[in-house]
Amino acid sequence: MDLKGYLAVKIRLIENALVKNLPKKDVPKTLFRGARYSIFSGGKRIRPVLVLASCEAAGGDCKKALNAASAIEFIHTYSLIHDDLPAMDDDDLRRGKPTLHKVIGVGNAILVGDALLTLAFQILADDKKLSPDKNTRLISELSRAAGISGMVGGQAVDIAAEGKDVNRKTVEYIHSRKTGALITASCRMGGITGGADKKALNALTLYGENIGLAFQITDDILNVTGDKSKTGKATGSDVRRRKATYPSAIGVEKSWKKAQDCVNAALKVVEVFGKKGIPLRMIAESILNRVS
Amino acid sequence: MDLKGYLAVKIRLIENALVKNLPKKDVPKTLFRGARYSIFSGGKRIRPVLVLASCEAAGGDCKKALNAASAIEFIHTYSLIHDDLPAMDDDDLRRGKPTLHKVIGVGNAILVGDALLTLAFQILADDKKLSPDKNTRLISELSRAAGISGMVGGQAVDIAAEGKDVNRKTVEYIHSRKTGALITASCRMGGITGGADKKALNALTLYGENIGLAFQITDDILNVTGDKSKTGKATGSDVRRRKATYPSAIGVEKSWKKAQDCVNAALKVVEVFGKKGIPLRMIAESILNRVS
Repeated sequence: MDLKGYLAVKIRLIENALVKNLPKKDVPKTLFRGARYSIFSGGKRIRPVLVLASCEAAGGDCKKALNAASAIEFIHTYSLIHDDLPAMDDDDLRRGKPTLHKVIGVGNAILVGDALLTLAFQILADDKKLSPDKNTRLISELSRAAGISGMVGGQAVDIAAEGKDVNRKTVEYIHSRKTGALITASCRMGGITGGADKKALNALTLYGENIGLAFQITDDILNVTGDKSKTGKATGSDVRRRKATYPSAIGVEKSWKKAQDCVNAALKVVEVFGKKGIPLRMIAESILNRVS
Repeated sequence: MDLKGYLAVKIRLIENALVKNLPKKDVPKTLFRGARYSIFSGGKRIRPVLVLASCEAAGGDCKKALNAASAIEFIHTYSLIHDDLPAMDDDDLRRGKPTLHKVIGVGNAILVGDALLTLAFQILADDKKLSPDKNTRLISELSRAAGISGMVGGQAVDIAAEGKDVNRKTVEYIHSRKTGALITASCRMGGITGGADKKALNALTLYGENIGLAFQITDDILNVTGDKSKTGKATGSDVRRRKATYPSAIGVEKSWKKAQDCVNAALKVVEVFGKKGIPLRMIAESILNRVS
């Protein structure tokens, strides 16, 4: 099994689930089109793939995790829409295409974000493939990761830090919440759907925390050292806007070392899953290949 | 029992629950303060009161419905924050105080809204007083009422309709979704926590739909005929902004008649609850008193 083949299979399942989970009936056209535009704009589906791979690592059937995977991707999409708004990061482009508010206006873009955030919880609550007990656990995980002490909290601190000199502690705070929390939640939610016991769930949590951090650091490094095609953002844009990043806080070399350490830690913890953990291993290893 | 005394008792319970359900630990200060500012800015707590009264009508203990009541009020608060934004209704004042984005900036106000929306589902998922089965039912109700085919959908159509001549059908579409869906959900969620059977839940649904509409129509009438102290908005602001309202679509007289019919229908359906339905009766009757 190679990573490319694995991803192709899983992403096909995910794309179908995303289409299925976005309602069309009784939905204002602008919202439906806006949601479609943002959901299907070439995202790499890292989070939903992690949900499926974690579910399988825990011994589950990944098809039962497709609603959790959709919910995570809808939350991720909403966060990008709101982050891109003029009052936030004020981005005109995402993945080379106009950001949603440039297409349908700021008011409608806010509403599409609100709608996707709400829809994520609806999908989980209405999932009849899983027990109500699992559904509430998944909603608890997702709401905590996405909410006021998670992703939204991280974005608030990120906005406040822009243009200021920040230390490593602040960068860690922002990264662990703004991107880390949702990536860790992807792994945990996959584990829950797959019936992970406490030990397995702990392993998935550590794995998620480590690859989340490694992913963010390599993203930061790519923004400094270049290759717009890999990041989708203009090289150097973080420096120009004085965003809080690892390279700006501790330098590129130390950042790179930190990313390697994280990936190694992630590879170590998934040994507990044996062969079933191979996809998680391959995903972790691929993070460093983006930079080197 | 009079309505004033009933409301005083219930609102005290609700205020305590709202304080308890807004986390402070590990929350960025701006978000915590912003959320507090908007939650405790003199709202009438109509929706959470309806949750408690519906729970009791169904024979339940209203203390078990306090988390559902908090969740509904957090959703309502988030919707006001986002609706007031410059890209939406662009309001500088709400209930005589500066709107949140005037106090903490647009970016942070969007985030406080996102946080409250997310928190509502977290509260419901983590409620240990109810079974996971009831929790998922409550989350399903709330997400549908608040989401893309409910409140958010209504707001999208409302924005699109501003400045245009609209017919009665469009006004009904907007009202039933933008405000009606959440009021109906309040009654249904109260019923679910109180153990309502199918018949009781149907009665609560009809009650909610009728008082939701009556409430919105009287709100529209007050905006035309005056008394800023009752609406909190400048008299005539809907006309100036050419908002879709009942008076603009069918005239004040017919609107008033429609509101009366809705209240009468609401009073009729709660007869099934006998004495336990008295608070719901009093609430319905009070709607017309706002205008007359």
